[in-house]
Amino acid sequence: MQAHNLKETLCTVVAIPVTPFETDGWIDFIAYRRLIGRLVEGDITVVTPNGNTGEFYSLSPDECRGAVEAAVEAVAGRALVVAGVGFDIATAVEMARFARQAGAGALMVHQIIHPYRTHRGWVAYHQAIAEAVPDLGIVPYVRDNLVTPVMMKNLLEACPNIVGVKYAVPDPLLFASMVREVGSERLAWICGIAESWAPFFWVGGARGFTSGLVNVQPSLSLAMLKCLRAGDYPGAMQIWSRLKPFEDLRARLSNGNNVSVIKEAMAQIGLSGRTVRPPISELPGTERAEVAAILSAWEIHMPAKS
Amino acid sequence: MQAHNLKETLCTVVAIPVTPFETDGWIDFIAYRRLIGRLVEGDITVVTPNGNTGEFYSLSPDECRGAVEAAVEAVAGRALVVAGVGFDIATAVEMARFARQAGAGALMVHQIIHPYRTHRGWVAYHQAIAEAVPDLGIVPYVRDNLVTPVMMKNLLEACPNIVGVKYAVPDPLLFASMVREVGSERLAWICGIAESWAPFFWVGGARGFTSGLVNVQPSLSLAMLKCLRAGDYPGAMQIWSRLKPFEDLRARLSNGNNVSVIKEAMAQIGLSGRTVRPPISELPGTERAEVAAILSAWEIHMPAKS
Repeated sequence: MQAHNLKETLCTVVAIPVTPFETDGWIDFIAYRRLIGRLVEGDITVVTPNGNTGEFYSLSPDECRGAVEAAVEAVAGRALVVAGVGFDIATAVEMARFARQAGAGALMVHQIIHPYRTHRGWVAYHQAIAEAVPDLGIVPYVRDNLVTPVMMKNLLEACPNIVGVKYAVPDPLLFASMVREVGSERLAWICGIAESWAPFFWVGGARGFTSGLVNVQPSLSLAMLKCLRAGDYPGAMQIWSRLKPFEDLRARLSNGNNVSVIKEAMAQIGLSGRTVRPPISELPGTERAEVAAILSAWEIHMPAKS
Repeated sequence: MQAHNLKETLCTVVAIPVTPFETDGWIDFIAYRRLIGRLVEGDITVVTPNGNTGEFYSLSPDECRGAVEAAVEAVAGRALVVAGVGFDIATAVEMARFARQAGAGALMVHQIIHPYRTHRGWVAYHQAIAEAVPDLGIVPYVRDNLVTPVMMKNLLEACPNIVGVKYAVPDPLLFASMVREVGSERLAWICGIAESWAPFFWVGGARGFTSGLVNVQPSLSLAMLKCLRAGDYPGAMQIWSRLKPFEDLRARLSNGNNVSVIKEAMAQIGLSGRTVRPPISELPGTERAEVAAILSAWEIHMPAKS
């Protein structure tokens, strides 16, 4: 796919699948392929294996490779696979080359975990990865409010294959300034903090948003996208109100619940297990009941016992 | 070494060596061994290969292993080696077992990079690593102000081999409360944010501090330690004033300069190269001159050209 087409393709709901685990802790690849198939059949067109909602930092390098292969296989050409890559440059480049070979069309470069960063170093890090796979689209994941429009412009000058940004600093003013200074047409501007922030980032120039909620129910997120694309903010905010209790539950404990709530919901509707890996943990009973109440309000029910 | 002895041993200046690179980017192991030898000969008794000042997150897994081996070799039994380990549990356990086999006496478990954490998950993460190497001392590196005394107590109940904490949240009140609630005698309480914070953390119960500055000059840090041990706060603050311009230069760009300033100083006095890896970058000329001025004020000079 050309950079131009990738940019268009990314302007949508970008699904971040969870990575289901068996109760013994290993990846349940059968459930993983099934849930990705269900996303695509639910009209999701961009899928990101190895995102934060996929517990990327709890997976071994082998498991990360397995997740990319399984995602490409389950998507079967029906959606764009944007593989998450990260860590030191040598490891990230290795992951990038593997993803290309496996059939991913783009990469999301994870937030930098090194506690020290400089302007030039930030650009050089992304450039080294982007140049290793010039035929893939590259989407930096920005969770750092120190990333400036000038840094982004320097990166874009160096790397024509940067096609989008997943912007995840919860500050719509910073985001809107970034879009204006870098250029709204130059990149696919993705709200990286999901449905809760999507309408506010849309005002600032976002043309897509990431979603973990789609693992449970793609239709709500796609309905919000439709409203936003039509400029129907009141409609989007009506959906926002329906989603908010679920997203608030995920946001508890400084986002400690982020993945566990989704897996709990999926377990309740029979889509996969609730097992998560440390440093996160399964929901306690009281919060499981809150998840059940939300699913019930959404009229999503547990399958009848067979 | 027994847990009790490890605790005593850790109550000192904990050196975090830089990882010198050749100009082509590969680790310069000759310079690395030489600098660690110099630390030990300068009366440093605890050395942490693969710390943040060692650019841990820019090293490949192979390079991390090489750094532990080189540190153990250079120390040659004259100091405690506390190897930095991290990432997903499987990788961290592998790194821990390697470090034990290589001859390290303790581990520093890096800050969790997973963006989502829960109380139980935080404990379970550290427990899984500590239990894999019950004969090594374990030192969690706490950079997260959400880590509570209760979490720490739960971890200590589960793992007798937790011997210290490297506390790196820049908040002496949080630190002092943690020491009081967990128990000042139970652990080696290490100020994890170096000389700038050491006197303030000492008041709250610290009995050691980490140092990157020792790479350039161990004697200033050891003089501060001596003052603090004697309860001579005015003396410690006099040394603090001498160190502060250097530490301030390191703290610029939200700590983006942290390692580059040390490497620049080492390059100026002929100890190793100034090469760093992205996401950090070498100092520009103006800041190189600032480093030179500080070294000159400290009466540390470039070696005469031979």
